[in-house]
Amino acid sequence: MSTFLLPSTLMASLLAATPQPSPASAPTAAQLQVAERLVGPALSEGHAWTRLAEITDGIGPRLSGSEGAEAAVQWALRSFKADGVKAWTEPVKVPRWVRGEERAELLSSERFRGRPLTVMALGGSGATPVEGVTGEVVEVFSLEELATLGERVKGRIVLFNHTMEKPEDYGRFASLRSRGPALAAKAGAVATLVRSLATASLNTPHTGATRFEDGIAPIPAASVTVEDAELLHRLLAGGGPVRVKLVLGCKELPEADSFNVVAEVKGREKPEEIILLGAHLDSWDVGTGAHDDGAGVVMVMEAARLLAKQKPAPRRTVRVVLFMNEENGLRGAKAYAEAHAAELPRHVAALEMDAGGGKPLGVSLRAGEGAAELVRPWLSPLVGVGSGNLLAQEAGGADLTPLLPARVPFFGVRQDGTHYFDVHHTHADTLDKVEPEALAKSTAAVAWMAYVMAEMPGVLPRPPAPPAPAAPAAGPVKSSGH
Amino acid sequence: MSTFLLPSTLMASLLAATPQPSPASAPTAAQLQVAERLVGPALSEGHAWTRLAEITDGIGPRLSGSEGAEAAVQWALRSFKADGVKAWTEPVKVPRWVRGEERAELLSSERFRGRPLTVMALGGSGATPVEGVTGEVVEVFSLEELATLGERVKGRIVLFNHTMEKPEDYGRFASLRSRGPALAAKAGAVATLVRSLATASLNTPHTGATRFEDGIAPIPAASVTVEDAELLHRLLAGGGPVRVKLVLGCKELPEADSFNVVAEVKGREKPEEIILLGAHLDSWDVGTGAHDDGAGVVMVMEAARLLAKQKPAPRRTVRVVLFMNEENGLRGAKAYAEAHAAELPRHVAALEMDAGGGKPLGVSLRAGEGAAELVRPWLSPLVGVGSGNLLAQEAGGADLTPLLPARVPFFGVRQDGTHYFDVHHTHADTLDKVEPEALAKSTAAVAWMAYVMAEMPGVLPRPPAPPAPAAPAAGPVKSSGH
Ligand SMILES: [Zn+2]
Ligand SMILES: [Zn+2]
Repeated sequence: MSTFLLPSTLMASLLAATPQPSPASAPTAAQLQVAERLVGPALSEGHAWTRLAEITDGIGPRLSGSEGAEAAVQWALRSFKADGVKAWTEPVKVPRWVRGEERAELLSSERFRGRPLTVMALGGSGATPVEGVTGEVVEVFSLEELATLGERVKGRIVLFNHTMEKPEDYGRFASLRSRGPALAAKAGAVATLVRSLATASLNTPHTGATRFEDGIAPIPAASVTVEDAELLHRLLAGGGPVRVKLVLGCKELPEADSFNVVAEVKGREKPEEIILLGAHLDSWDVGTGAHDDGAGVVMVMEAARLLAKQKPAPRRTVRVVLFMNEENGLRGAKAYAEAHAAELPRHVAALEMDAGGGKPLGVSLRAGEGAAELVRPWLSPLVGVGSGNLLAQEAGGADLTPLLPARVPFFGVRQDGTHYFDVHHTHADTLDKVEPEALAKSTAAVAWMAYVMAEMPGVLPRPPAPPAPAAPAAGPVKSSGH
Repeated sequence: MSTFLLPSTLMASLLAATPQPSPASAPTAAQLQVAERLVGPALSEGHAWTRLAEITDGIGPRLSGSEGAEAAVQWALRSFKADGVKAWTEPVKVPRWVRGEERAELLSSERFRGRPLTVMALGGSGATPVEGVTGEVVEVFSLEELATLGERVKGRIVLFNHTMEKPEDYGRFASLRSRGPALAAKAGAVATLVRSLATASLNTPHTGATRFEDGIAPIPAASVTVEDAELLHRLLAGGGPVRVKLVLGCKELPEADSFNVVAEVKGREKPEEIILLGAHLDSWDVGTGAHDDGAGVVMVMEAARLLAKQKPAPRRTVRVVLFMNEENGLRGAKAYAEAHAAELPRHVAALEMDAGGGKPLGVSLRAGEGAAELVRPWLSPLVGVGSGNLLAQEAGGADLTPLLPARVPFFGVRQDGTHYFDVHHTHADTLDKVEPEALAKSTAAVAWMAYVMAEMPGVLPRPPAPPAPAAPAAGPVKSSGH
């Protein structure tokens, strides 16, 4: 993360050039007419949905470094061009992890007959030997509990179990997946199984990134379904050893050349002031990344298409960034923040849509004091799509994390995420799971809010500086997988 | 089915010996005390649940002819013995179909990149060559539509699509799975994909039996997930050929020796009159058959255990039959009806529990006129478990079909099946999907209704003779997979 911390002298001089907020004001009649020309087409034309079908049905999964990811880059460039929006690529070096054979079995005992377990390697997992690895399962419910086990982890397969039930639980348990395997490796485990982070399961494994910091050799780390985690739990509770064999054939290939796709609608009056609309072009290698994050991609693309048609253009520049590698490295986000470091003080607002294609529930902000008062008068056009309320004083997205040190104000459209974690990072994240009406409404909300940020007389007050980065051992802070 | 049609002279003479109904009467105080000793333990002891854990977690899947099926037979014998219920096996020759490699992929076109499809061979499917079979997909929504296609089926892969949404739709669409592949084979198709019969999907394939009548060589027949059926539908709707490659390594092995497990609680006064409580011991080879039909098995076993403790014993004999091979042959049901042909006129009531472990909603009957009036006075002990109503004039179960010609009255406990087809015939039919409270309540209802049938002064009037069997081409009528 140190690459994003600019020297304080440079920071100070840039800050002098940073746009400052003006007093609150309501939109004019002409500005409100723009709302009709944004909300109307977003709801009636189905253009975002058509694009979502192209990137999911047409292109498919888009893990960083894969052919699908490259196809998505080319598709995005073509699509922006077709929409009359200027676009270009910016280079990103990405990790290239590939899934291989993956299977596991419960070995027979006196109390139960063996049988297959449903597993899916976590991104970043190490491989097993071809013949697999076999070990006795030891179950923990937290990283703290793992730490108390000491020698009992050596040579074992650690099962990270948990009690996720609702979407809000994701944040509590995601570190079991992202950090658990590395900690288990340090403690001498031969492999790990992580209960899928899921709000529903039909024996459905959920993948996601796990991180092995430098110096820790990756061990095999797979997700296991809710059902099989509960089976292992019951068998362990019944007493006696529970032994599992795990075969994972995944590989870490050499890093690959890839790209962020960046597009712009130039502002008419303050083109140097930038409203960033982000989403991530990559997905996991299972399913077709419809909710995560095809939906976000087509929403911000559609916002740009509709804004590009407005004459006159909005006051400020709207820049769409389709980040590469959100899922397993955040390389696109880091590359963008580095390449555009000098511009960040002129990033006057940024949004990332990365919570699926659910219907909009309201608008959120992460900015300095007074931001809500500036924005509230502009929300009436979203009442009809159910998004006219100002909700939490919190917004962001994993790809926006590198913008935190520059104190870029974040805005967001909050969405219904009730079923998001049913399909998140699974084979089931496919087009059929996205409701066209919900997608259209959220698209409308994004388009209008982008216009609001680009058009309102003043800019959002910048938020306070973020707290110092966490201790190095914890690695970069990442609300991974949203 | 002809094996079950007894010569009419024999039928007539047997009928003379068939018990006849008496006028309605309410239970005595002593009989109502038995209700307490059945409903109480069923709800409070959790014994059915413990048994369900044994047969699912402990034994696992139980497809006919498999080691799991054999283990289940031994487990059932042991368990009846432990419960103080006399039990024995009766021989059944069963088919032995085994799953092999199974995968499919969508082949690339100009409009879409190829990718894996999620398939699962249907029981009875033929295999593909090792390298797989490739063909252009043609989609139909009914057997009638298939018939109209004529030559256009030749060399193609037929996709049987449908619009199943709720449990009640299963009956409408099940013939696409059970009969569609054979009809497609006759028409020259090289393989078939059948949309999973599902009320929910997280890219979840559902297996089930498909039948190839004598003289039709089995072709490869796989279920495809709802998601992938919809994907294929969208791609076909988009125009241009959609080509799929399918690899299925399943095999039909020689028939195997297996068993029904039969157990009895002898009647005190009319031991020759039999109340049959059925469920099926076999399951599909995926998941652990928790709802289908582990739940039914443990309910009828628990009914027998609780009835065996009652002193005095009920008036009539309660016989539990754990049928083998309901799922892919109904061989156990046929073997039972043949071996016990002479006794069928003295089967005064029969039930099969094969609709999962949901909570009870009421009691159902398939009997002659006046049956409801006989039963209604005995339902009050089930009000507290939500099952005190007399519901539909229909009851049965696939394994009871061979009892129809003998006009055996059927009774049933109707259950909540809202989520039954979410997991039916899938990897997700596991213990965690069964609610202990619902299982306990349904167990109580079964135990009491078994007692009612065994104890009430008269027997149910027998239903009218069933309609003549369907045309031979359609094969045996089977509400398969309940
Ligand atoms: Zn995401
Ligand atoms: Zn069944």
